[in-house]
Amino acid sequence: MPVPEKFGGVVPPVCTPLTDTYEIDVPSLETLIRFQLDAGVHGLFMLGSTSETAAITDDQRKQVLEVAVRTVGGQVPVLAGVIDFSTAQVLDHMRIAEELGVDGFVATAPFYIRPSQEEIVAHFRALHEATSLPIFAYEIPPNVQTSIARSTMVAMAREGLIAGMKDSSGNEGNFRNVLLDTRDVEGFAAFTGAELTVDAVLLMGADGVVPGLGNVDPAGYVRLYDAMRAGQIDAAREEQERLCRLFGIIWQGAGRTGFTASALGAFKTALMLRGVISTNVMGRPMTRLNDEETGRIREILAATGLL
Amino acid sequence: MPVPEKFGGVVPPVCTPLTDTYEIDVPSLETLIRFQLDAGVHGLFMLGSTSETAAITDDQRKQVLEVAVRTVGGQVPVLAGVIDFSTAQVLDHMRIAEELGVDGFVATAPFYIRPSQEEIVAHFRALHEATSLPIFAYEIPPNVQTSIARSTMVAMAREGLIAGMKDSSGNEGNFRNVLLDTRDVEGFAAFTGAELTVDAVLLMGADGVVPGLGNVDPAGYVRLYDAMRAGQIDAAREEQERLCRLFGIIWQGAGRTGFTASALGAFKTALMLRGVISTNVMGRPMTRLNDEETGRIREILAATGLL
Amino acid sequence: MPVPEKFGGVVPPVCTPLTDTYEIDVPSLETLIRFQLDAGVHGLFMLGSTSETAAITDDQRKQVLEVAVRTVGGQVPVLAGVIDFSTAQVLDHMRIAEELGVDGFVATAPFYIRPSQEEIVAHFRALHEATSLPIFAYEIPPNVQTSIARSTMVAMAREGLIAGMKDSSGNEGNFRNVLLDTRDVEGFAAFTGAELTVDAVLLMGADGVVPGLGNVDPAGYVRLYDAMRAGQIDAAREEQERLCRLFGIIWQGAGRTGFTASALGAFKTALMLRGVISTNVMGRPMTRLNDEETGRIREILAATGLL
Amino acid sequence: MPVPEKFGGVVPPVCTPLTDTYEIDVPSLETLIRFQLDAGVHGLFMLGSTSETAAITDDQRKQVLEVAVRTVGGQVPVLAGVIDFSTAQVLDHMRIAEELGVDGFVATAPFYIRPSQEEIVAHFRALHEATSLPIFAYEIPPNVQTSIARSTMVAMAREGLIAGMKDSSGNEGNFRNVLLDTRDVEGFAAFTGAELTVDAVLLMGADGVVPGLGNVDPAGYVRLYDAMRAGQIDAAREEQERLCRLFGIIWQGAGRTGFTASALGAFKTALMLRGVISTNVMGRPMTRLNDEETGRIREILAATGLL
Repeated sequence: MPVPEKFGGVVPPVCTPLTDTYEIDVPSLETLIRFQLDAGVHGLFMLGSTSETAAITDDQRKQVLEVAVRTVGGQVPVLAGVIDFSTAQVLDHMRIAEELGVDGFVATAPFYIRPSQEEIVAHFRALHEATSLPIFAYEIPPNVQTSIARSTMVAMAREGLIAGMKDSSGNEGNFRNVLLDTRDVEGFAAFTGAELTVDAVLLMGADGVVPGLGNVDPAGYVRLYDAMRAGQIDAAREEQERLCRLFGIIWQGAGRTGFTASALGAFKTALMLRGVISTNVMGRPMTRLNDEETGRIREILAATGLL
Repeated sequence: MPVPEKFGGVVPPVCTPLTDTYEIDVPSLETLIRFQLDAGVHGLFMLGSTSETAAITDDQRKQVLEVAVRTVGGQVPVLAGVIDFSTAQVLDHMRIAEELGVDGFVATAPFYIRPSQEEIVAHFRALHEATSLPIFAYEIPPNVQTSIARSTMVAMAREGLIAGMKDSSGNEGNFRNVLLDTRDVEGFAAFTGAELTVDAVLLMGADGVVPGLGNVDPAGYVRLYDAMRAGQIDAAREEQERLCRLFGIIWQGAGRTGFTASALGAFKTALMLRGVISTNVMGRPMTRLNDEETGRIREILAATGLL
Repeated sequence: MPVPEKFGGVVPPVCTPLTDTYEIDVPSLETLIRFQLDAGVHGLFMLGSTSETAAITDDQRKQVLEVAVRTVGGQVPVLAGVIDFSTAQVLDHMRIAEELGVDGFVATAPFYIRPSQEEIVAHFRALHEATSLPIFAYEIPPNVQTSIARSTMVAMAREGLIAGMKDSSGNEGNFRNVLLDTRDVEGFAAFTGAELTVDAVLLMGADGVVPGLGNVDPAGYVRLYDAMRAGQIDAAREEQERLCRLFGIIWQGAGRTGFTASALGAFKTALMLRGVISTNVMGRPMTRLNDEETGRIREILAATGLL
Repeated sequence: MPVPEKFGGVVPPVCTPLTDTYEIDVPSLETLIRFQLDAGVHGLFMLGSTSETAAITDDQRKQVLEVAVRTVGGQVPVLAGVIDFSTAQVLDHMRIAEELGVDGFVATAPFYIRPSQEEIVAHFRALHEATSLPIFAYEIPPNVQTSIARSTMVAMAREGLIAGMKDSSGNEGNFRNVLLDTRDVEGFAAFTGAELTVDAVLLMGADGVVPGLGNVDPAGYVRLYDAMRAGQIDAAREEQERLCRLFGIIWQGAGRTGFTASALGAFKTALMLRGVISTNVMGRPMTRLNDEETGRIREILAATGLL
């Protein structure tokens, strides 16, 4: 399904289930996608940070998109992350993804090369020239080191290089400024990646949310989104606060593992405990959460009504 | 040529010349490699950060290695950078590079996933298990965000997971501690990536240098290395200081471009001015240095005896 | 006026007007305080970061508190910032401030010494033992380098070492977690220092706001606070968005000056243009905004209804 | 003793011994100063970072300088750190220190206000105008957040605002560039604060060292300095490597305490074990090293010939 003119809602960045030998666990991925669709999400973001794109091969990226496009079957837009160093590689990912039938792209600032703001614009301009599909700019400085500055984001929106953005900076003040600056750019769709402040940023005027935690509880995020759209602030806050408590799962492995492995591993562990996917195996060198950590996640799921 | 038991010396990270259409400029690459060999370098490091590995495709990586192995013809060891997110991709790069006949690998800490120290060790252990060729750990926190801690580096050296290291942290104090901690690890080869302090770190006991600036003046770095080996401290310092002045080329584009594009672009521009390669084109989204910047680089080359 | 059991509302961090010779401009300070009181603020925070406490002498700190206590005359609580390196100096500031009649203290994590979380707790415990007045923890990592971790903040609230907090981290997700974790700590008052997201954090359950921009438009922040308290979400958002546009004044000097001088200088310049204080002189080495920058601030004030 | 025209050598940043009630331990301070003088140091730096200046009161700063000036009795120059936020406070410290008879000042970039490079120059210009004594710029970004850029440092040297510098950045490449850029500035004295690379930076042309570890083993640093001055590179390196092993004391408390407390606490603990000072009490909120940590320090002292 093409990205609609007024795009918004809940668009989870879908986890990538793996087998014990680090292959894509296709049946689990299919189940996970249907689990998301059944919950009423408004789109799916494959190959994001949460998808462990940084820990799978190029062939596996392709396989994930094939499964997604086939399983979704046009019910909602499928966005493909094209996360890689720089223009050359991203263009390669885009070409392949477009052939596989995705509906749009999500691209970060280039990394490793530590680009200037001018170079970020040049990057997105090159991507834009290579496709007629919508491109979403993915602001995630903790992972790529460089921020897409407010002025850069707004200029790219005005020039039509990007159709929207996902903000995972955690900097809500700056995000609000971008929201205000792009309010008159028709069709520009601004998503937050922050799981804990969805009610707040929808209040500010954001169009949707791309919550990693949405893998575990897509229905919760859809309820939260619907409540805000209906002006039911108190109901939304109550749902959001439950999701904040659920978010406690992400710190259970931290210290033993890096923070990324702890957070993404928690999503997979929770999905395993909920019976959606088969294992909580992580892409190497990340390691799966252990029994003790899994036990604590089970408790949190129970306390938040998910087990 | 296999990496020798006592490896050391000058091992430049070779630039990747490009054509106006962003293809590998094979004749220029061949000339550049011969320019390095003629200067007496002790090895070549292809596909490093200086090589713009972050701005070329996987096919182009392969092409660069083919050219290098063929052109070097066994005269010195050829090391292949296998810079990528995580274990799965790096293993793919290693397999291909090994088939092409390289003599060793250079690998960074995983990035984007922000690994723990334990995960860094797991990463290098997986790489080690996949090859019998030597692996060098590449410490470059400004590009990959995460430091390989002193204790991690030393543990990996003792376990035999790595045959050596390249330190591009700029933290000479920590590097010295690693040098002292690994002095009794037979065959461990410690290189610095710092262009400005080669005499100093050789004094401390480092085995060699991997200077980006060595692209432009490999003979200078060989003279510097030889002088230190001969105990001619004053001659070495004089050569080093000339190279420090030459290093001034790297800031000419900064501000307009990112720092990476400014530095790597300066190396290419200087090589172009010296007649070694054909253009100073950079991988996208980086842009080549302009005429004014090129003019200032010409002046510095003249002032340091290279034009 | 003592800090009430249920403290909240708008508590601006008051600018410190200076003369051309860097003395406290007492008449301007008195006028500014009355300007705040007339707007209906719920407390005043003297000697905060916005007050240029980092650019005035200890004698001038004393003078500011004397003027504030006298001018406020018990109408609202007067909080005194006690910003300094470590325990010894902060205790000295507290003793003096308490003698001058302030109603509570605001203290940051120690800085320059880069403390551990345990040392942060030890610091606040020592402060708490030295006074019966309420202490507010001031989370401002951009200025002091160290974050007061969520778990530290919550533990200090539960132990009663702190009566509340001001969050100037810009990390609304973490702030929300602290709000949820302290919801059952009776009387704990959580303020945000973020000017752009006041409606959002009040929605989350925060008790009030300490806006630097409140110097310029205290009535606007009071209206915003009142609207949120009355459940008038749309009216609140409209007011907040006007204040977001007004906040544009803070970048007019940036680049020429550091960001701090640009922001605090903009507050002073706007107050000067509004006729509240006499000059926009800054504490050295910061310099006042120039005529061109002042002109742009005048335009923003006009566009947001303040001139 | 006035700072000589050609200043250099070993100038330890002297620890500030405290009593159990956090008062200056005057007899210990006197003994420590005589211990340094007996070892042949070329100057003393009171009230540096190592001196816990960030954890003592203004009155205690004064007391330390009184003891130092009296005890040194003109045998070597006494430099006074004037570490504080900004110009106003630093000028106050300078006035008092000058009255007490110190021979020069050491000043950092302003902090908390996050100054621009222009503001750093304005700061040092204001200090320079207030005294005829030499001022040394103290580059210590880990503690003050802001770097004094190479171009700023060189410009201040050329303008005569500063008589020298202490580099505690750990960035030896940048330091070398500054050394080269200031080589023709007569009398400019460049010191390193890095304990582990003294032989290397003296080789590069630095004039001296301000080693925190020099508190514990001033004789070692004097031997190292003398060996380098005599061109005895091998003897210098051997001494330096022993001091590198001794430097292992600084990590014994880390984790339990912040890194600063661990390092400075180690110096005090070693001095206590060597019988120079009475206790290893630290300024609050830092805590003294415990028995287990002290035991490990004793072992390192024994292994490096100091017990």
